[in-house]
Amino acid sequence: MSFRIDPRLEADGAPLAELPLCHVRLVRDARFPWIVAVPRVAGAEELTDLSPADRAALVEELALLTGALKAATGAYKINVGALGNIVRQLHIHIVARFEGDAAWPGPVWGSGATMPYLDSAMESLAKHLRRTLAERISVCQQ
Amino acid sequence: MSFRIDPRLEADGAPLAELPLCHVRLVRDARFPWIVAVPRVAGAEELTDLSPADRAALVEELALLTGALKAATGAYKINVGALGNIVRQLHIHIVARFEGDAAWPGPVWGSGATMPYLDSAMESLAKHLRRTLAERISVCQQ
Repeated sequence: MSFRIDPRLEADGAPLAELPLCHVRLVRDARFPWIVAVPRVAGAEELTDLSPADRAALVEELALLTGALKAATGAYKINVGALGNIVRQLHIHIVARFEGDAAWPGPVWGSGATMPYLDSAMESLAKHLRRTLAERISVCQQ
Repeated sequence: MSFRIDPRLEADGAPLAELPLCHVRLVRDARFPWIVAVPRVAGAEELTDLSPADRAALVEELALLTGALKAATGAYKINVGALGNIVRQLHIHIVARFEGDAAWPGPVWGSGATMPYLDSAMESLAKHLRRTLAERISVCQQ
């Protein structure tokens, strides 16, 4: 079985980055700067479906995405979650939260309706995030 | 600054296990078999506040808890989440989910009112989980 991203995850966002383990997408919801990381491991649904080496890579990529999202947005808190109740394919949400945002202080999952980005705002955020990620990856590799 | 568990996390549950990195608690909510893991790292709020070694330990402990909770409860899906919008101290939820449970398919966080356990049901679940964890830890160490 080869890896293929679930079409529902694909429809929800736009590609942001390819990290060593994860395909990374920006979610199409202007209410929250929201990233989804999908390990490119066919059939994985739970953390226990990854090898220890892939889990170690995953947590480092989640830390990288957490730091970049916080730096790029000035978020008050980053929420990290792997639910998978609807889309079973293992995918991890990394969401920038602000006091008083549309779901504050509750979770973003299942909270109200998605809000579309206006004009080029999503592409601007994606560019800013890609630049922040690139800076951090080059720092890590030095 | 020395590590001390946030009193709100302490009030929500009962101690379940001490793993090498995390203090582990069972949450006092009969609607969902629900574990919280708290890395014993003073001041940590985000994944980026842990060292790479602690992050590697954390993800292995989350996998251990995921596997044990799934085996002990027969859950359909395990939800893993680190929110921290209210209690800032880094803590990770590991929740057994069943189709049609009280929050299905939404997240458990912020969903309705806590339901108390009846009589000794919480202690029975804790014992079962401790036994499942102990079996898995001894298997890992062999």
